[in-house]
Formats: sequence, C-alpha cells, structure tokens
Amino acid sequence: MSAVPVVPSYVQDAWWTPTPEAATDAVVVRDASTGEPVVRVSATGLDLAAAVAHARTVGQRSLGALTIHQRALLLKQCALALTERKAELYEASACTGATARDSMVDVDGGIGVLFTYSSKGRRELPNANVVLDGPAEVLSKDGSFLGRHVYTRMTGVAVQVNAFNFPVWGPLEKLAPAFLAGVPTIIKPATPTGYVTEAWVRILVESGLLPAGSLQLVSGSARDLLDQLDLSDSVAFTGSASTAARLRDHVAVTERGVRFTAETDSINASVLGPDAVDGTPELDAFVAQAVTELTTKAGQKCTAIRRLIVPEALADVVVERLRERIATKVVVGDPRAAGVTMGPLASTGQVAEVRRQVERLVADGASVVIGAVPGSAPTVVLGNGTTGTAPDGAFVTPVVLRADAAGPGALVHEVEAFGPVATVITYATLPEAVALVNRGGGSLVTSAATHDPAVAVELVTGIAAANGRVLLLDRDDARTSTGHGSPVPHLVHGGPGRAGGGEELGGVRAVFHYMQRTAVQGTPRLLTALTGVWHPGAATVDDGEHPFRKSLAELRVGDRVVSGSRTVTLADIETFAHFTGDTFYAHMDEEAAAANPFFPGRVAHGYLLVSWAAGLFVDAAPGPVLANSGLENLRFVTPVSPGDAIRVELTAKQVTPRETEEYGEVRWDAVLRNQRDELVASYDVLTLVAKTRVPEPALR
Amino acid sequence: MSAVPVVPSYVQDAWWTPTPEAATDAVVVRDASTGEPVVRVSATGLDLAAAVAHARTVGQRSLGALTIHQRALLLKQCALALTERKAELYEASACTGATARDSMVDVDGGIGVLFTYSSKGRRELPNANVVLDGPAEVLSKDGSFLGRHVYTRMTGVAVQVNAFNFPVWGPLEKLAPAFLAGVPTIIKPATPTGYVTEAWVRILVESGLLPAGSLQLVSGSARDLLDQLDLSDSVAFTGSASTAARLRDHVAVTERGVRFTAETDSINASVLGPDAVDGTPELDAFVAQAVTELTTKAGQKCTAIRRLIVPEALADVVVERLRERIATKVVVGDPRAAGVTMGPLASTGQVAEVRRQVERLVADGASVVIGAVPGSAPTVVLGNGTTGTAPDGAFVTPVVLRADAAGPGALVHEVEAFGPVATVITYATLPEAVALVNRGGGSLVTSAATHDPAVAVELVTGIAAANGRVLLLDRDDARTSTGHGSPVPHLVHGGPGRAGGGEELGGVRAVFHYMQRTAVQGTPRLLTALTGVWHPGAATVDDGEHPFRKSLAELRVGDRVVSGSRTVTLADIETFAHFTGDTFYAHMDEEAAAANPFFPGRVAHGYLLVSWAAGLFVDAAPGPVLANSGLENLRFVTPVSPGDAIRVELTAKQVTPRETEEYGEVRWDAVLRNQRDELVASYDVLTLVAKTRVPEPALR
Repeated sequence: MSAVPVVPSYVQDAWWTPTPEAATDAVVVRDASTGEPVVRVSATGLDLAAAVAHARTVGQRSLGALTIHQRALLLKQCALALTERKAELYEASACTGATARDSMVDVDGGIGVLFTYSSKGRRELPNANVVLDGPAEVLSKDGSFLGRHVYTRMTGVAVQVNAFNFPVWGPLEKLAPAFLAGVPTIIKPATPTGYVTEAWVRILVESGLLPAGSLQLVSGSARDLLDQLDLSDSVAFTGSASTAARLRDHVAVTERGVRFTAETDSINASVLGPDAVDGTPELDAFVAQAVTELTTKAGQKCTAIRRLIVPEALADVVVERLRERIATKVVVGDPRAAGVTMGPLASTGQVAEVRRQVERLVADGASVVIGAVPGSAPTVVLGNGTTGTAPDGAFVTPVVLRADAAGPGALVHEVEAFGPVATVITYATLPEAVALVNRGGGSLVTSAATHDPAVAVELVTGIAAANGRVLLLDRDDARTSTGHGSPVPHLVHGGPGRAGGGEELGGVRAVFHYMQRTAVQGTPRLLTALTGVWHPGAATVDDGEHPFRKSLAELRVGDRVVSGSRTVTLADIETFAHFTGDTFYAHMDEEAAAANPFFPGRVAHGYLLVSWAAGLFVDAAPGPVLANSGLENLRFVTPVSPGDAIRVELTAKQVTPRETEEYGEVRWDAVLRNQRDELVASYDVLTLVAKTRVPEPALR
Repeated sequence: MSAVPVVPSYVQDAWWTPTPEAATDAVVVRDASTGEPVVRVSATGLDLAAAVAHARTVGQRSLGALTIHQRALLLKQCALALTERKAELYEASACTGATARDSMVDVDGGIGVLFTYSSKGRRELPNANVVLDGPAEVLSKDGSFLGRHVYTRMTGVAVQVNAFNFPVWGPLEKLAPAFLAGVPTIIKPATPTGYVTEAWVRILVESGLLPAGSLQLVSGSARDLLDQLDLSDSVAFTGSASTAARLRDHVAVTERGVRFTAETDSINASVLGPDAVDGTPELDAFVAQAVTELTTKAGQKCTAIRRLIVPEALADVVVERLRERIATKVVVGDPRAAGVTMGPLASTGQVAEVRRQVERLVADGASVVIGAVPGSAPTVVLGNGTTGTAPDGAFVTPVVLRADAAGPGALVHEVEAFGPVATVITYATLPEAVALVNRGGGSLVTSAATHDPAVAVELVTGIAAANGRVLLLDRDDARTSTGHGSPVPHLVHGGPGRAGGGEELGGVRAVFHYMQRTAVQGTPRLLTALTGVWHPGAATVDDGEHPFRKSLAELRVGDRVVSGSRTVTLADIETFAHFTGDTFYAHMDEEAAAANPFFPGRVAHGYLLVSWAAGLFVDAAPGPVLANSGLENLRFVTPVSPGDAIRVELTAKQVTPRETEEYGEVRWDAVLRNQRDELVASYDVLTLVAKTRVPEPALR
C-alpha cells in the first residue's frame, strides 16, 4: 500500500505530506466502481496551530491589503484558471463514482459559484472594506448624533469541514464568500474524496493567484483544529446532523464564541399538487424531477428528495410513471463506461449504511415497490462496457418505497437513506400535505408541482418556515428550472432544524457570515471618516472648482456644488406640461389641484424640479463626469408653487472605482430646497466618472 | 407572609394564581431599600404546555388575521395605553431600587420601543404578511424561472426569559418585534422584579388591545417550558452567560431546532483616545459618561462600562476627575427620597455577589482607588430624607479600581461585578488599546472618546468585529449622544462571544428574528401570487380602463398601461436643454458626445425621457391617483438619439394601503423601450392613491 500516494496538505503556503512513518496510519481510499486503491490520506504530524496562526497573520494581512472588488476580481481569475484545467477534475471525480453529469454539477457548479460571487461582489458590494447595512439612523434632533450599521470582516480564520459528495463545489461555495469578505480559509475535505479537492487547490496554487495565507488545505483528520479557534474564527460544516451536533458542543463554540454554521442532510420532500392529475405537464415534471434526484450522485445529495408526497388518488400512477422512467432512463454502472447515467455510491461502507436505513424503513412498515433492499452486488455496466457484477464496487440500484399515510411517528420523516432511495407518502387534503412536509423537522428544500396559484400559496405559506428553499414546478418552468436538488449561488442554501439551522450562499448574504454587523454611533464627521460615505452634517468642500471637473483620483466625498436659485412661474409649468404631455390636473387646473389633499393649488411637476436641478448643478463642458447612469431614492416632500424658487445642493457621497475600467461610479447626494429653506426633494444621483482628469484619447 | 400578595400569571387569556397550598413554596421579594416584603412569586401548578398550545393555536390565528401594519398600529395604541398609566409603573419600580431617572430608562424607554416599532413597521415593512428580502434573481435566460427570498413568520411561540434589571424595557423590546412578525409571546420575567412586568401586562390586558393569545406571562419558575418547544418556536434570553450556556445546551435547542438567542452581560469598555488630553471636551465627556454608567441602575446594566481604557499619561487625571464628579454628583439612597441619584442594588444577594467579584479583582492585583470593597451597610439617604444606614437595604457606593497595563490573563477582562464598579486600565499605543478591548471576548458595546478621525477609524476597524455596538464620543455629540449604556431600538443590541452572540432590536432587523427566510423558486406568475408583488413575466391586465382611474380597492397588481410611442428630435433635445439649463455636452455637442465612451453622438437627457414617459402614461383628469411621491431604482440603459422613438409600459407592482389614511402607496413598474425594443430605462414610480374611487368631499 505504501506505493499508493498520500494526498498532500497545503499549509503555510507550502505543500506538506506526513513522513513515511507517520503515514503508516493513513486511510486507503478506493475507486468506488472497482475497489482499486486510489490514494492514502493522513495528516498525522501536521501543525494545525501553526496553520491557524498563519491564516490569522499572513492571510488576514494579504487579504486585507485588497478591497472587496479586488478580491472579487481574483475570484474570477481563479474561476478561469480552474476552467482551463477542468478535465483533470473530471478525471479525478470519476474515481469517486461521479458520472460526467455528476461532475458537471460538482466541477462546473463550483466554478460557477466563483463567477457569480465575483460578479455579485463587484455589483452589489462597495469597492471598500467596510460595508454599510441599511440607512443612517438620525438619533438626535439636530443631526449631530447618528447610528449606522456596518459590516467589518472577522479577524480570524474561516474553517470549513466538508462532506464527501461534492469535493469541488462544497469547499468552493464556502471559500468564495469568505475570500470576498477578506477572511482566510482552512479547508478540511472529507477523506473519501479529498483528493479531488486537492486537485483543484493545486491548480489554484499553481496559478499564483492566491494571496499568501488565504487558503490552506488539511488532507486528513482535523483532530484538534477546533481547539485553536476563538471568537475571531468561524466553522462552516456540511455533513451529518450527528457530527454537526458534536461540533456544536465543542467548548470553542459553546464558550469561546466560535461562529458555527451547519448544513446537514435533511428529509426533503416533493409534493404533487391535487391539480396535477394524470395527463398534466405538472405530473410529468414531478416524475422526471424525482428520477433525476434519485439518480444524480446516486442520490448522495443533502438536497435529494426523500419523501414524495402525493394525493391518494394519484399514488398508483406516480409509482407506475417512476417505474417506467427508471426502467428507460437509468443505467447504473462505472461512470467511465459509455451510456452510464448513475454511478456507484462513494464506498462499500456507504452501501452497507444505505441498506441499514432501508431495512429500518421496511421494519417501520414501508414497502419496497420499485427495486429491492440493497443486498449482494447488482448487475451493472462495468468499466470496460460489459455487463456484470463488481464485488468490490459500491453499486446500488434505485429503490422506491411506499408508506401510505405515514403518520406523525413514522420513521420515513426521520430516516435518511443517503443513496438512490425515496418513499411515496399519500395525503388527503392540502393541510395534511403541509403537516407531512413539516414533519421533516426542518428541510433544506421542498418542491411542489402545481399550476394552481391557490395551491402554491397555501403550500408555500404553510411550509416556508420549515424550509430553506421551496421550488414551485409547473408547465411554465419545467424546462428552465434549475432543479429541486441544485442550490444556486444567488439563493440561500440551508434550512432550519434538522437541516442544520445554517445558511450559506444567497449571493452577498453569505459574505456577511464572515463579517460582524456592528452599530456605530457618532457624529456625521466621524461616520464619514469610518465608512468613506459622506453623511449629511459632515464637512463639505466648496473649493471653487466644480466637482464635475474632478476625476475619481481627485474627487473627495464632501465635495459640493451649491447652485443659485431659480423661480418657477406658471408659464414654466405650462411650458413643461405641453412639452412633456404631462398635463396632470395638479399642474393645470387650480381648482382641482387645490381640492387634492397634498397640494395648495397648481404645483410644478416633480420631473420639472429634478430636470431643473440638473440644469442648476451641471457643468456642461466635457470633463471627467461621463454620464448620468441613474437616480435612486427620490422623494418629493414639499410641493413647489408658482413663485417659489428652488436651489440644489449636490455633494459627492460615495466613490466606487471599477477595477477593470478607466472609470467608476460616483453617487451624489442631491437636496432641493425652496426659498423658505424647506426640503423640496432629496435623491441620489448616480454618475460614471473617469479615473483621471485628462480623458483618454478615446474619450476626446 | 401569606398576607403578601402572589404575583399572578396571565395565561390562556386569563389571570392565574397558584392555590394557597401550592404557593407555600413562593419566593418572597423585598423592597431593595428597606427590606420590606413586596410580593411573593410562584407559578407552581401552572400548565405551561397549555400555554404553549394556546399561543400556537389561538395566538397564531389572531395575530395572523392582521397584517404587519395593523399589528404596528396596535403597538402604538399599546404605547399610548401604557403612557397614560405610567405613574403606576414608576411607583412599582421604586421598590426595585430604581431612581426616577432609572425608571425613565426602563419605563419610557420601553414605551419608546413600541412607538419606534410601530412607526418603523409601517414605514419599512409592507402592509402584508410575506416580506421580500432583496431583489428577484432571474435564474433562466427567458425569465420564466426566478428566485426570490421571502420572510414568513415562525409558526410557534416566542418565549422570552428576562433579566431583573429592566422589567419594562426588557420584555417590551422583545415583544415588539415578535408581535410585529405575528408571533405570540410568552414572557418569563426575572423573579426579583417580575411584579413590575406584571403591572404593565395588566395595563395592556385591561386596555383590551391585545389579540387573543398574543401575550402570556409566567410569573414564576418556567420549569419545563423549554421541553414544550420545537422548530417552530424561539427563545430570547437576557441574563448571565452561564444561564445562557445552560439553556443553549437544552435538547430543545440542540436537537429540536428551537431558535435560541442570548444577550448576556459583557465586560464592556470605554476607551479614551490619545488626543483626548486634559482640558479637551473629550476627556470631560469621557468622565461624565463613565460616572453616568457607574450609577445608572447602580451599575446593574449589561451595557455598563466595566473597563476604562486610558492612555498611561492620562490615568491619574482621569481618576481624579472621576473622584471629583462622583463626590459632587452622586447621592446614594432610597430612590423615593429627594435628591437621590443612585439607588440600591436589586437585593442584598446582589450586594454579596458584587462584593465577591470586587474581591476577586483585588486578589488578581487590581487596587481600589475610589470607594471601597463593599462591606457593611454604607451611610445613605433613607426614605424619610434623613441620612443613616439601612441594614436590610441593598446599598453599595461606587467603586473604581486600577489595574494598570492589565495583561492578557488579567481577570478584569473576564470578571463582571454587576454593580457600580469599573476598573481603569492603561495602554501605551492604539494597537494595545484595540487588543485590550478585544480581550473582553466579545462585548455588547465599546465607546471611544476621540475627536481625531484617524484614531476613530483605527479603533473602530480594530474592535468592531468584537462588538455589537461602538459609540464615538466627542465635543460634537457629547450633549446629543444617547449614551454608552443605552441600546436604542433603531440599532442592533447584542454582541458576539461573551455578550451572547445574539442580536435584538436594530429596527426591522429584529422582526426577522421571528420569521424564516426562505428562497422560493418558480415562475413570475406563482411568485406574484405568493408575494402580492408583480414580477415581470406575470400576467398583465390592460382592460381598457386606465389604471390611474382605479382606486386602491379596484387596482390589482398587473394592471398596466402601454403608451403610444413618441419620437425624439434634435429640436426636442435643444428645447429641453434650454428650458432646464442642462446643456451638458452629451446633449449639445455632436463631436464631444461621440467622443464619450457611452454615447453614439448627441443623446436625449435622461430627465427628458422620464418626463416624457410621465406625459405618455399619465391620465390627466382628477381621479384616485393623488400624487407622484417619488421614484426609485432608475437606471438608464440604452442612450436615445434623435430619431429614436420611446414608449413606456407602466404596471401596478405593489399596493400598500395605509391603515390610518384614506389613501395608500402604489408602486408602479416603469419600463422605457425604443423602436428596436431595446431597454432604454427602468424604474419604480411611487404614487399615492385614494382607497375609494369616489373622492372624499375634501378631495373634490
């Protein structure tokens, strides 16, 4: 066995393997289809304390030297580096029993997470390191005391403990948000498939893209890793509920404040609506999705459907359709053989575990209606394309059980057979279907096949609080749905209760898992200094140069232009009305306008006011300000009557350079007041501004 | 003792007291100043399972029959009912040792939370029961499959376990967000001050405002309450870290998925900046705040300052100023006597506990520099206005210790003397100050007195991740600051690690603690049905009647007007430029415009386009639409050149009736396209619309 290579770890920015003596305790990992040894795994002798210290010092420093957008750009470059060499990952994955389709979910799905976080990080987060949450809260009458919620990164390390089923996607979906937040990561993959994780970590290391200390890999037991952690650190766990419970009980979590989140497999359900009778596209979509979930990764997915909850009257037809589809679509075998659509489980140990759980379900009264309780090695397609049995392979074939009207105590709501196993349960009424779903005690996902909005609303409002995700399947999205079992990086992945109680992904929401939200109170001046965003009441600069003449490099938040005032006449209102076609009575009919509860009589159009404001604050000649890209949070507060005079204050509020362009965004605070100093309107003007004052030749 | 009344519980919408036999085990609660018995406390025999069941059924049903805005309005009415009778609460509070100022924090503060939540609930949340989180995520190229995060209320009960120090504010700040979310509450007050909680619960019950089952009160031991709870329920705990740890270990939390949050007292710090030398307003503000925090509630506050972290060179002057201020401002005594500014602790048991902790600090090397280790009863102002000792009163006088350069292992970072006790610690450099703050292992709040933005930024970015709140104190907010020790309902209250790891308050953020965030995937049609918000791709209605002619009662999301098209000419652009004054070169100078990276040549003003759009979609005659109140999320996508023709689609997106007005808000989805069907601009138009079609006489 010593000829079988030991999977290296990557710590303190260097590869590490145990000494041959230490490696004598290594675990041998075998090919899921053939039983041949693939690698050995051991981290005996690895200095985990040094790895944690390296992350906290070198990793924090190198990531902290970058802004969120700079880190986002690195994520994209990492995604491109992985894409270029993804064939290597497919090859490694095949040994784990993954089919090409399974690997696409894992490999391309994982790379896709990096792309999505790169894009969302730059579109939805500031190019800075302090992120604002919600608006400023004015806490004193005179505006001298404000409160503001800010997110700052956690100051330690993000430890991830992964499950065996997605060795690429699993760690990447945890890495991306931590990296974006600026927190270094230590990855602890599951032993049976950690060599696939090592393969992509190696590609990233070789790409030279990783900031020092930002990523470390522990290939082997994490032993005393939690002992090293404290308040500044986090642990994101994916795996079984029992392991999650054990980690959550660790003194580092219970007493030292380590932030712990868990995603555990759950007893997910798929509900067939009462409207989705035989012959409807919804029933077809329900069955097709069920078979997909049964067979993808051979059912070894925390999001797979375990319970098919169907109307009593439709149970027989559902079972028949499942039988037909499994018979025609599912080919079990070595994923390296052509035509195979479902591979083996990860190991023969998993086969024994699935058998044990199916036997529990049967003992509890469920009956097998498709397939059989996993027993001796089934006939499958072997690696050479022939058909036969593989005594050392981890093959099982799909199993569907029936547990009609499974009551509250039924094991089918608690037992997970982590393989191609699902149980049909029947319901009589929608409230009963809701109660059955919720018997799962908290799930990652429930799907419902229905085209009836009333059914959809009753089901979703009944089950939402017990689910992290709900998918509504019908004729209109059956072809475009991303599928019951697929977390997408845009949406939260996780679920309450049995599902672990944690949340991952969900776009930038996950970035905040690696940051602390803190309420900061103080003056506008100090909050502006802290956040880089100008707060009303902080200093403004009116240095005689119009701020539109300043490039991104020169502009400072607080740079301001205060316009002269301009008086609105009735003729102006009429001119504007006839030019725009907006002859709304509040502008045109004195009597009707005065009868309106909000207007003293005819008033100027809101759009006239913001148009004039632009005329009042604009600097017309070519310069660094390239375009008005938008406007936000416009509120009209005091109506403007003929004879009123308006003026505008425009203050640079936030400057966001784009990493990949020669320009960036500037958000301006715009305030319109009348001659009595009353607030007429307030809004944010969004502009694109060149980084340098002398325009590029192309801009001339 | 049996003549001393037993504090009743309020369960299943009725008052309950134990039988005289059961009450024999009742705890006697004594006046903090005099030691006279005030009440007895026992819940022996109370059916807690029935209370939980009542909340889950009756409470959920009655709260679910209301919208968020309707519940918000009830909160305001409750606040008014309490305001009317608040003298009763002040009177009860005085027995607990609270001075009038203390009661103001507790009673008026608690009522203020209700007002704030009422207001924020109506301004920041929809008048509905499904709350959206973030934008829709388009998950398929053709837009037929979307993802959307929604919050729905938890389906069980919100259990709160409170500390003794704020019997009004404490439970009210937990009640308000749960009530707003639509989740019934069971309050378990702390035994020593639960009679004050009972007093305000009684006022609310007598007001008749509470929906059935929405509020229950357990006056006494909560015994097996947690045993009744599951995934649908939550527990919000305030109290000691050790009790929090015990509750967090309960099987209901670890295995059944009960949502548990804790706020525990923490070792909060206040830092004096190196710039805040003698003679600066910041040093004065620092000292004044320190004395306030030492004496308010006699220091029995989870947010009180325990560590005064000051530059070495300023330690002596700080101690002297503290001494002067304590000597001149602090009068300890029975809060019912005139002139008393600091009352007793809650009980003589607390005096012993504070003594024990001060002794631990002294044994660890700290020295008492102001006051003395609490010993025999000090001389104080008695209830009759004379001076003397109260052997049965719980009086202590302020104690300031010094532990210069308290190193990492020093107990001062771990030990909390829950009374008028603080320790001065010195630092040499700012990084050292940051490290000292963070030694607290996670705090509710740290304040810093500095006027130097660089100091403020370095401190805040260093300590934010270890604090729930940070307050920056300087000359500009010293008078308007709400204070180190005062959580405000707008900002999160809570902190990581030692502070419990939970969050409360923070405006509507706290409402979401009582709801589950779920990602829902489906078609625009079904997401529209679920959320009540129109999604692009869902059905639209163009029934020939302009939607501006429809009242709130008639309007349906999806009601749409599609305008004719209008061609933009160069003359239009010039007219608009000269009318508004907006002669920006992109509109006026063909060559300069073409050199701009975003424009093909001269283009129409964005404000011209939105003004024309209004002219295209408006229905001019008086009708239910009363005013354009604002505009949001405007993005200009494709520039419009002379010769291009624009048209607009305006679709009713969200309807929000106001509970207290004859109108409400309608949000419209506005999309501008050109003659090539390209997206020119998109935005939301905000309008105020009458509830009924026939205008009120006042509107005519």
